[in-house]
Parts: sequence; structure tokens; C-alpha cells
Amino acid sequence: MTFSFDLISQDKNSHARAGMIHTSYGDIPTPVFAPVGTQATVKTLTPADLQELGATLILSNTYHLYLRPGPDLIADFGGLHRFMQWDGPILTDSGGFQVFSLEGLREIDEEGVTFRSHLDGSQHRFTPERVIAIQEKLGADIIMAFDECPAPDDYDYNVAALDRTHRWAARCRTAQSRSDQALYGIVQGGIFADLRARSAQFLTSLDFPGYGIGGLSVGETKAQMHEMLDVLHHILPQDKPRYLMGVGSPEDLFECVARGVDQFDCVLPTRIARNGSVFTHQGRVNLRNAQFSSDRQPIEPACRCYTCRTFSRAYLRHLIVAKETLALRLATLHNLHFMLELMRSIRGTILSGDFGSYKDRFLAEYRVVPEEKRGRRTK
Amino acid sequence: MTFSFDLISQDKNSHARAGMIHTSYGDIPTPVFAPVGTQATVKTLTPADLQELGATLILSNTYHLYLRPGPDLIADFGGLHRFMQWDGPILTDSGGFQVFSLEGLREIDEEGVTFRSHLDGSQHRFTPERVIAIQEKLGADIIMAFDECPAPDDYDYNVAALDRTHRWAARCRTAQSRSDQALYGIVQGGIFADLRARSAQFLTSLDFPGYGIGGLSVGETKAQMHEMLDVLHHILPQDKPRYLMGVGSPEDLFECVARGVDQFDCVLPTRIARNGSVFTHQGRVNLRNAQFSSDRQPIEPACRCYTCRTFSRAYLRHLIVAKETLALRLATLHNLHFMLELMRSIRGTILSGDFGSYKDRFLAEYRVVPEEKRGRRTK
Repeated sequence: MTFSFDLISQDKNSHARAGMIHTSYGDIPTPVFAPVGTQATVKTLTPADLQELGATLILSNTYHLYLRPGPDLIADFGGLHRFMQWDGPILTDSGGFQVFSLEGLREIDEEGVTFRSHLDGSQHRFTPERVIAIQEKLGADIIMAFDECPAPDDYDYNVAALDRTHRWAARCRTAQSRSDQALYGIVQGGIFADLRARSAQFLTSLDFPGYGIGGLSVGETKAQMHEMLDVLHHILPQDKPRYLMGVGSPEDLFECVARGVDQFDCVLPTRIARNGSVFTHQGRVNLRNAQFSSDRQPIEPACRCYTCRTFSRAYLRHLIVAKETLALRLATLHNLHFMLELMRSIRGTILSGDFGSYKDRFLAEYRVVPEEKRGRRTK
Repeated sequence: MTFSFDLISQDKNSHARAGMIHTSYGDIPTPVFAPVGTQATVKTLTPADLQELGATLILSNTYHLYLRPGPDLIADFGGLHRFMQWDGPILTDSGGFQVFSLEGLREIDEEGVTFRSHLDGSQHRFTPERVIAIQEKLGADIIMAFDECPAPDDYDYNVAALDRTHRWAARCRTAQSRSDQALYGIVQGGIFADLRARSAQFLTSLDFPGYGIGGLSVGETKAQMHEMLDVLHHILPQDKPRYLMGVGSPEDLFECVARGVDQFDCVLPTRIARNGSVFTHQGRVNLRNAQFSSDRQPIEPACRCYTCRTFSRAYLRHLIVAKETLALRLATLHNLHFMLELMRSIRGTILSGDFGSYKDRFLAEYRVVPEEKRGRRTK
């Protein structure tokens, strides 16, 4: 087994943890934020860009890569790392969330899910065994169990789905044949503390090398999400990484790290960049706004990303208004730098014992966007 | 005057010339190919990318920048170089071609042109004096006279337009107030040798520091274009750069350099990149073709651009099929590298005396795309 996790430090006043995940493609300091590269590319960026940003883990998606370009092609190229020329750690999500999101186009049974492609309507079938086989062909360092992702507030459905997800997790564990990939189980259970506890206990009994926390950030309130994390912190093993899937915003990083989460991914920084929105320490701003039309400042004067070192807000606004795709790239560079740098600072303050005051300072200044429809992962 | 041109070497068997243009933002080895950055950005690329590609001159457009973001804003930023953060030489086209392309939306009189914006239909007026004033605000190193660009095969219209273009050229010369910009006159005259000769003689009498050759590559045959260049070679002063506007393809570079042209710009490499087409030494290929779906080779194995050093054709095809904008950037990087590298080789062989054999070797291998609708500049 080439995968391991070292818990290095724990915060005294919260459940925040600093650690290190070791993989054969490199080490991942935790807590970590993973940029999302659904289709074997983090939108608008090259691997060289990601390296310059200091990304240590990126996420890709089994459902999308299965449909296009196909796992056999990627396997022929020696796996996803070689295909996309990203030389660092990769995680593939199992496609569970994507398949269950295909409302009206999928049918679930005990064995698996039959679904139609969102690309051409062709029929396909995922089972736990098949999803593991596909992820073994893709060859990511961290792979995810095939899970069912129900609406978070339907208790009866969550009970039924949970038992099936547990049986599928066990089948995934059994189906795994490669020893150089870490398979994470995924805790489900919606917004129900008893179900979350049961799920964490069952999955822990299967002894996964890491644990995903799924089915959050899909419509419940932040308070409900935090409550679930508080429940899980005491049940999930301390010596394994916990991965909160599809989260989060800058404020989420602080609140969820404080509740013991080690690993995050979210489309937010790349998705809002494509609308011209960028992160600042005062909150998000949209560069399309006329107020920036003659603004000589960079997005953030103290930011060291290429975009801020080089361009004014006025120039970025010009690119957005003129529909130049360079705008998307420059905003993406800034937003990912912002998130990755934030996580580096969070980790540094956990190690130095200053996490609590850093969190308070950041959240006092950062204007949070009111709760909105969030998504675990992009389709 | 900070602008000057040194003619360094002339080919023995053709009219090919190697030289050096000096500007206050740097030297431009000639012959030179200028990437097109119509809206103050070479589409999908950063200034750092252009520098890595070895671009020594880029082109931007007065018409587009006048409408958006406006010359006063750019002047407030200290000019186009500072606004777009490109630290090398810039040429602005006068907007003549764009305005005359607004069929039905513009009216020409002796004083100038009244036109409606293609963006919002608002009414504007360009005169030679106004176009020079705008270009002085933009602050490029090379600026162009305001000219009329008629269909190349209408003799009577070309006669009438030519006289007006000459009067406008003289007015542009008089209107110029900045001494740190080189104003080029533009030779017109369609496909008519007598008109081209007359135009070159008249403009030469005004003693411009450089000469644009306009109204070609707009529907005439390549043979007609070559004939016009042969006429002009003997009339335009030897010690001034000649700029063939809106040209060209790889084969055009060879044929037109051989006819005495020093300077080129063309949207071709950036425009075809956006369709997934890339240059190779055997001709253009479209990476979208299914034949590349599992091709492990780079676009060109010997190419040293970032795209070819990093990615397979199969991966590039995947990005194109998956509609990932990174594909546009990677294809643009390759195509511009191809053109810039080609021009560096052309210049090297002019200096070494091997231009003729290099030209023959290249054209023997390169499969030319059949003549198609070409455009002097993008709108």
C-alpha cells in the first residue's frame, strides 16, 4: 500500500487537524482544497498553471471520463496522470452523485444503476464492481466507493438508501484489485444524526484508508451541515483523512476544518470565475460591475497570483465585457490561488496554534454570500 | 524620432530582405509575423505566453478599442502597453478596414466616414485627424493611416478611392503630433498595377517611415497578390519596412517575403485554433478528426511549443470534443509558435543565404489549403 496518512497536529480549541497524505504521486499536506477537473482538465488551466498555483491534489470524475473519452483509452495511455500530464495526486469521484442526478434518466436496483448518458441518451449500467473497475483503469491515487445520494431531508428514503450504500461499499471494497489506490468509503445519512452515526460506524468497520462525507452542501442549511460534522468527528477514526465532498466556499473551509475535515473539493472558484466573480478578503466581487471600469488596482493588492501581479481590475473588466476567454483563465487563476493560499494559511495556523484567531479575523472581514443553491459537484 | 529601420541583408535570388526595426519598446527583427490582439488581447494568451513564444510585435485595432473600452480610458492608464501589460512593440491598425466592412452601416464623404457601431448601433464619425488622435491616445509604436479599402477588382471605384486615400494619408501625416510613433501610409489600388504604382509613388513622396500594403488577401487570387507585390518592390523605398496587412498563411510568408515584404499580421493561426485546426509542416490538420482519438503523438514531434512538449493529439482531441476552452489556448500556442518559428527560420536563412532552398523544401512538403475566403483583419 503506497497510501498513508499522518496526523501531525490537532488544534487545542477546535477539531482542526493538520496532517500529511502520502501517495505514490506525491504528498498532500492537509487540510487540502482540491481544484475540480471533471473532464481531465481544470477548466482553462494547464498542468503547469496548477503546479505554479501549488495545487497538491486535483479531482476528476468517473462518470464523465467513462462516457468521454472512455476508461480503456485512458488506461492505454498509462492512466489519467499520463493522459492529462498532471504529475501530482488525483482523486476520482465514483460518479454516484452524477448518475443519481440524472432524474428521470436512471433506475436504481439492488445491484446497481441503469442510466442514460446526458451526452447522447445511450444506455449504460454502473454497479459497485463496474465503478471500481473503471476507476482502476483511470488510475487515480484516491478513488471513491459507489454510493447513493438521496435528498438530505427524506428520512425514510435515507434509511433505505443508506443500507444499500453500505452493501455497495462492502462490494466496492471486495472488488478492489489494485493495491496502489486508496479507496474511500462515503458516509451518507442526510441531515439525520442517527443515520450519519450508523453510516460512520458501519464504514469504519470496513476499515477504509479514508472517508468521504457525501450528501452535504446539496440544499440543507450550513447549521445542519455543521451538526453532521460534529457527530462524525467522534465516530470516524482519528488516523484516517476525512473528505467533505463538494464543499466549499472560503467560509466553509474555516468552519469545516474546525470540525475535523481534512479534504475538500468544490467547483465554486472555477465556476464563479466563469461569471466574472472573484474572491477577495472582503468577500466576492463581480468584475463585470461598472464600478471597476477605470479601476487601476489589481483584484487584491496583496495577492501574489499572476493575475494580481499583472493586471488592473479595469483591464479584467474590459476582457469580460469584450467576451474574451482570457478573462475566465485570469479569474480562475486568482480564485484558485485564493483558495489554495487560504488553505495553506489555515494549515500553517493549525501548526502554530493560531487557527482560532486566524479564523475569527478572516470571518470578521469576509462578507459571506447568502446561502444559495450549492452543488456537491458539477455535472 | 525613436523609430528606425535597418536593412541588414538581401537575398541574392529573390527580393527577400532581413532587417531590424527599432522602437522604444524594443527591436523587431524582420521579416516579422505579428499575432493579432484586436481587443487588447491575443485571444486566450497572456503577455507572459507571448513573451515565451518570442513574439516581437503584436497588432491591435483602433476601431475596436475606440468603441470599447475607449481611447481616453487607455490613455489614462498610460497607453495600450500599460493597459494590457505587454511590454513589447505594438501596432494599431487605423480601423479603416473595419469601418468600410460595415456595409450598410457607414457613409463615406470627402472628410471622413460616419458609421454605426456593430456593438450597439450608436453613431460615430472617423476622420483622418480623429483616427490619428485616437491612435496617439492608444500609444502604439506603429500606427496606420486612415484608408479606404474598396473591392480589389472594381477599377473605377479604386481610382476614386485611391485619390481620397491619398488625400487622407497627407492629412494623417499633418495631424500627427507625437514623434515617438511611426505612422505608416497604406498603399491601395486593388489588383491594378498602374494604380498600385501610382499609390506607392504618391505615398513615397510623403516620406513615411514605413508602408502598409492594404486591400490584398480580400478575394483576389494569390497570383494577383504576388503581381502587385512585384510591382511595389521596385517603387517603395528600399530603406523602409513594407507591411502586408492581414496576410498570411505559412505559404504566404514564404511567397511574400520572397517579394520583398518585411512585416505581416494575420488572424489565421488564432482563428483556426478556435476550430481545432493546427499547423504542421505537412499542412493543416483538424484535431477534432476521429483519426486522432487514440493518437499518442504530439501535434508535431519536433515542435518545442508547450503544447507539443506536453500533450498527445488524443488528449487535445478530447478537450475539443468535450468543449473545454483549454483546447483553444493549447492550439493557439502551437499555431503561433509555428508561425513565429517559421519566420525566425526564414530570417535565419535570408541571413545565411539559404532562403531559396529552405522555401523550396518547405513548400514541397506543405500541403496548401485551397484558396478560400480570406480576410485582411478580423472584425
